[in-house]
Amino acid sequence: MREDTGNLQTARKSVRLLDATMRDGGIVNAFAFSDKFAESLYRTNVAAGVDIMEFGYKASEKMFDAAKFGKWKFCKEDDIRGIVGENKTNMKIAVMADVGRVDLKEAVTDKNNSVIDIYRIAAYLNQIPSALEMAEYCHNKGYMTALNIMAISKNQESDLKRALEEAGKSPVDVIYIVDSFGSLYPEEIRRVGEIYLETGDKYNKQIGMHAHNNQQLAFANTIEACALGVNYLDSTMAGMGRGAGNCHTEAMLGFLKNPKYRIEPALLFLKEFMNPLKETGVTWGYDVPYLLTGLFNAHPSAAIEFIKSNRDDYVGFLNGLLDID
Amino acid sequence: MREDTGNLQTARKSVRLLDATMRDGGIVNAFAFSDKFAESLYRTNVAAGVDIMEFGYKASEKMFDAAKFGKWKFCKEDDIRGIVGENKTNMKIAVMADVGRVDLKEAVTDKNNSVIDIYRIAAYLNQIPSALEMAEYCHNKGYMTALNIMAISKNQESDLKRALEEAGKSPVDVIYIVDSFGSLYPEEIRRVGEIYLETGDKYNKQIGMHAHNNQQLAFANTIEACALGVNYLDSTMAGMGRGAGNCHTEAMLGFLKNPKYRIEPALLFLKEFMNPLKETGVTWGYDVPYLLTGLFNAHPSAAIEFIKSNRDDYVGFLNGLLDID
Repeated sequence: MREDTGNLQTARKSVRLLDATMRDGGIVNAFAFSDKFAESLYRTNVAAGVDIMEFGYKASEKMFDAAKFGKWKFCKEDDIRGIVGENKTNMKIAVMADVGRVDLKEAVTDKNNSVIDIYRIAAYLNQIPSALEMAEYCHNKGYMTALNIMAISKNQESDLKRALEEAGKSPVDVIYIVDSFGSLYPEEIRRVGEIYLETGDKYNKQIGMHAHNNQQLAFANTIEACALGVNYLDSTMAGMGRGAGNCHTEAMLGFLKNPKYRIEPALLFLKEFMNPLKETGVTWGYDVPYLLTGLFNAHPSAAIEFIKSNRDDYVGFLNGLLDID
Repeated sequence: MREDTGNLQTARKSVRLLDATMRDGGIVNAFAFSDKFAESLYRTNVAAGVDIMEFGYKASEKMFDAAKFGKWKFCKEDDIRGIVGENKTNMKIAVMADVGRVDLKEAVTDKNNSVIDIYRIAAYLNQIPSALEMAEYCHNKGYMTALNIMAISKNQESDLKRALEEAGKSPVDVIYIVDSFGSLYPEEIRRVGEIYLETGDKYNKQIGMHAHNNQQLAFANTIEACALGVNYLDSTMAGMGRGAGNCHTEAMLGFLKNPKYRIEPALLFLKEFMNPLKETGVTWGYDVPYLLTGLFNAHPSAAIEFIKSNRDDYVGFLNGLLDID
């Protein structure tokens, strides 16, 4: 599984680039992407050689008010088909489901009736049993599945290892390293990556990387994971995502050596859609408060609020962050 | 020399953090920093535990019109003393001199008469003999010296090794890896770093790292170099520097584990000086055109022009970049 780690001059055929712009980016603008945006992103990703496009969340409309979110919070089959038709391309379609935020039995039809290819189940470490039950349900319906274990920087390594054992024995196809707080350094990615890859080797699972850019390390951590043998790599256009955002899809398209990846379609999309989106006031990307939440391994929510209120008394912010006792 | 490589939990006592805000940042605003800025940055760096502060260039007024630049382009002794007095602190004062752009015999007095501690000589690989002559001159005047070999991503490894041999035999104290175009990946930093460190081991020289943020890898590359055993680490406040800028001093102060480093003074400085400076329209930092010049190992000048003219036809820019034949 790790034979194909390659180097900077080789194309690693086993790499799968996943564009999560509408899912992680959707958190920033309440999933209010226009159909024109979605259609163009879909065509862009196909043209750029992106392997998987994640459209958004499968969330329960009983739990979330559909009036407050764009449709990609719910990713109904007809809405996805409205963009991709029968998706007669080589690119796979993914959606994410959070433990406890979706009624799978209502949401998930047989794969035969769906253009969705992959269900990614996002869970905190203490939700692994629920997550694996959900993944098994999707697997039995005919889908490929991934388990995204969030906020691992908050957990003990021994607990993580037990969770990985459980995931290893499950039908899940890909297990993701998720640096939710953007707090891991490349040195830690190598250590944590080895732990995941050992599970991957033992149980024949693929490993994935989902990085956040709080310390401007999302791209570095993603390519470090890639060099280790982590094959599923998440990124978003212009890094759009919660708080400091993600690894940039355009950086990955430039970095990856497989000739099927092309950066030009992404560059066009940045000009046509991401720059105008930023001009409407939708805000994400590296800023000092994210450096601090990343540094102290804290949820970015306080930093997001701080930036929204146009504050820059960083020392006060830091004191608040450290004031837990 | 590399015994003290440490890990994320240990303080590496041999690390020297150099704040180059007024030197590399000065390239962005023609060195037009107010005295208030310079005084506050000096006090900030002392309070933050920064080991070396670089004030600017020693450039020849015969070659550069003093009316067009702030005084830190020339770094006259009296101007530095106006800020630091006799510099009764533990922080060292550095200035940079470019090969061919300074008349050393006019510019460099005996160390006894100067508050400058370190001369950093910047040179392209083909200027090494001149650079080493300059370094020897400064060394003989009583200064510590560094050699910053620029744009190494454009050079052959075999040529670089020969240059390092020459530098090894010279009186130079520190030899810097300079990723002028922000084109190196952490994987390459490890390879190149090993080459420099072999010279360091052989000739008892310190090695330094000066990174640029074109691909958002300046911080990652700097801490990777640090982990290898590179001890002299350059950074600037808010990453201020040519084009995409540099590794951020505040990120380094957060990362480094020696208790003498404190991030709070830097956070105050960002609020009081760097944010207002940005609001005056002085521009630097990561942007798509820099990703492309970094990716294709090109000088950032075209990207700087492109951004100045508020263009975002990135594909056209990329085509121009590749159109060399």
